[in-house]
Amino acid sequence: MKIAVNGASGRLGAMICNLAHDAVPVERSKEAPAVPVVIDVSSAEGLRQLIPKLKQQALLVGTTGDLPWEALEDYAKNAPVAVVPNFSVGIPMLIELISKAVPALPPGWDIEIVEAHHNQKKDAPSGTALRLAKAVAQCSDGILPNMHSLRAGDTFGEHTIWMCGPGERIELKHVATGRSVFAIGALRWAKWLVKQPNGLIRP
Amino acid sequence: MKIAVNGASGRLGAMICNLAHDAVPVERSKEAPAVPVVIDVSSAEGLRQLIPKLKQQALLVGTTGDLPWEALEDYAKNAPVAVVPNFSVGIPMLIELISKAVPALPPGWDIEIVEAHHNQKKDAPSGTALRLAKAVAQCSDGILPNMHSLRAGDTFGEHTIWMCGPGERIELKHVATGRSVFAIGALRWAKWLVKQPNGLIRP
Amino acid sequence: MKIAVNGASGRLGAMICNLAHDAVPVERSKEAPAVPVVIDVSSAEGLRQLIPKLKQQALLVGTTGDLPWEALEDYAKNAPVAVVPNFSVGIPMLIELISKAVPALPPGWDIEIVEAHHNQKKDAPSGTALRLAKAVAQCSDGILPNMHSLRAGDTFGEHTIWMCGPGERIELKHVATGRSVFAIGALRWAKWLVKQPNGLIRP
Amino acid sequence: MKIAVNGASGRLGAMICNLAHDAVPVERSKEAPAVPVVIDVSSAEGLRQLIPKLKQQALLVGTTGDLPWEALEDYAKNAPVAVVPNFSVGIPMLIELISKAVPALPPGWDIEIVEAHHNQKKDAPSGTALRLAKAVAQCSDGILPNMHSLRAGDTFGEHTIWMCGPGERIELKHVATGRSVFAIGALRWAKWLVKQPNGLIRP
Repeated sequence: MKIAVNGASGRLGAMICNLAHDAVPVERSKEAPAVPVVIDVSSAEGLRQLIPKLKQQALLVGTTGDLPWEALEDYAKNAPVAVVPNFSVGIPMLIELISKAVPALPPGWDIEIVEAHHNQKKDAPSGTALRLAKAVAQCSDGILPNMHSLRAGDTFGEHTIWMCGPGERIELKHVATGRSVFAIGALRWAKWLVKQPNGLIRP
Repeated sequence: MKIAVNGASGRLGAMICNLAHDAVPVERSKEAPAVPVVIDVSSAEGLRQLIPKLKQQALLVGTTGDLPWEALEDYAKNAPVAVVPNFSVGIPMLIELISKAVPALPPGWDIEIVEAHHNQKKDAPSGTALRLAKAVAQCSDGILPNMHSLRAGDTFGEHTIWMCGPGERIELKHVATGRSVFAIGALRWAKWLVKQPNGLIRP
Repeated sequence: MKIAVNGASGRLGAMICNLAHDAVPVERSKEAPAVPVVIDVSSAEGLRQLIPKLKQQALLVGTTGDLPWEALEDYAKNAPVAVVPNFSVGIPMLIELISKAVPALPPGWDIEIVEAHHNQKKDAPSGTALRLAKAVAQCSDGILPNMHSLRAGDTFGEHTIWMCGPGERIELKHVATGRSVFAIGALRWAKWLVKQPNGLIRP
Repeated sequence: MKIAVNGASGRLGAMICNLAHDAVPVERSKEAPAVPVVIDVSSAEGLRQLIPKLKQQALLVGTTGDLPWEALEDYAKNAPVAVVPNFSVGIPMLIELISKAVPALPPGWDIEIVEAHHNQKKDAPSGTALRLAKAVAQCSDGILPNMHSLRAGDTFGEHTIWMCGPGERIELKHVATGRSVFAIGALRWAKWLVKQPNGLIRP
């Protein structure tokens, strides 16, 4: 399947292009090429500029930040659109597992989140840790659990949720071992998205 | 709530009695006392001998092995009965989470199980590891995942399921930190069971 | 070997007495019994009151806080005395391993400490985490590493030192699985101490 | 510092060349270039062919297998030579820490090793796990500890030594997060080696 990439010069965009041998960069074109799906990994502004160039093909958005939701909803009337904040398999799965596990815990259990990233990462806790924490809060008392952020070496990305009660502990953990995880995931989502009906999907 | 314990002289039975201050041992009585729930933590044979002594009270079975299923089903016509192979919160939860996670993995992911127990434990892999492995097999290709058994020191009980794909890994882990986990769990199940309708429950 | 325990009514003291079947409590006696070794697990004040009662037997001190150092040094002229802030095998070993590992790391490696304890623990970071952090600081740049304290469930005590550099990570971890670790350790130290020459030992 | 690489077309060799911008491949040359140090990451046979081409420069050997020890010893009379089976910081450090920790354990402690690698790895246990196991055996009773090998996903390389006794556990762990760890390490060793006196070093 042919794809186009908006943000192809970024680290993730470059890796997606590398993986999908004949991907077409979009950012400098006047209009999107006639391919079944465009993957946006640019920026909120890059996405804003992309939408008018599209030709009713599927749109997979991996950008975060202040997204142009109105334009996305408009475009989704005539094409399948998915906004996926994390292309890994594991992080969306952890969010799903949290939604099963946390409501089933007996009262009085404690939940804490530990995450580790490389020492150049500016923000703490990580965006992903925050999303996991919100997933916990949504299905318990609305209060964010304690979060602990390690910034050390070139750790790629680890997130662990501790759930502790009398005499036992449950841990849900995700380890990202390389950037490839997001590029591989983008292509997996793209293949899936082209088969979906029109509409905006926010998994 | 008053409870009676069949197998009160065993390690787990003694701890349950200790925790539920006025628990009544059953094993040497001719008939069960008039309490709302009896907890059996004796043995398959002990359970067999218990059933005729019961008085339509709730029956919580924590015994494993070759259970008298016919007698249990018969008794369950007139009382709530639950057969719970592991009184912890975490192990049944892990089995539930496996049933959500494994079918959602992309093709080609590898699953392995690591468990650790004290160095006096005779069997390997542990019964719990086998149950986790079966839960994996049931929702994938029917093949048991590789299992690794550490027997070291007085480790109380740890089970980890590794799920590994390109660039990422998901771990589901349970750590039992003391025998209390099973005694506390037995009382939690007992409280819940007395409110259930008649019938045999196998969670 | 007969022992006496000062602080026998505390949690650790009771466990030591339980383990060493015929231990003699000292705190209410006018003078220490004629046993080869006295173990103090009371308090700084309790230790202060103990010293004048002693009869030149070995003295093992497991108390922390504002200890009566002058009195200890005085007493050590005529008896072997050891002040051991942590009776486990692993924590003193971790401090020793830190002193080997940290000076051998290439420049630019990051060190962080993660510790977990039960949710009733008041102080954070734990005293042990602070001691590990000081051990790191002493053999690097004098700056304490980042510390992260989880307080969840009834976790007995876990400490991990992360050392991270380009492409790799070394972890040194200690898990205490029960209070027994300290009681067993106290008796091991006691047996060793009675064979030492007079003098004050601070391992 | 200029370097030459024997085995520059292999995965590790290519990464070393990439990292050390002006590295010179040696394998197809008649003689080694006039650089202060040659790094061999080819094969036992490749190393055999390399030695006669050398010009008394430092030689860093990262090859394993049936090495030409006589030729190496001969060459080391006139140049510093180091044979380093693992260029990471952490694995040699773990071996060092094992030699401190294991002899200091009380009798009756159990030691086990867990290692994890990608699912294409043919051998189990890994060569590194075997070396860690030998380090344990050498300073205890000569018996190799139990080893457990996970082969899952694209796990780059993890090794953990468990040391377990009553009430506590010590873990020494190494996580390699990318091949870069070995290339970076090769250059670090090379810089160090050129300052050493003639002779064969086997750290």
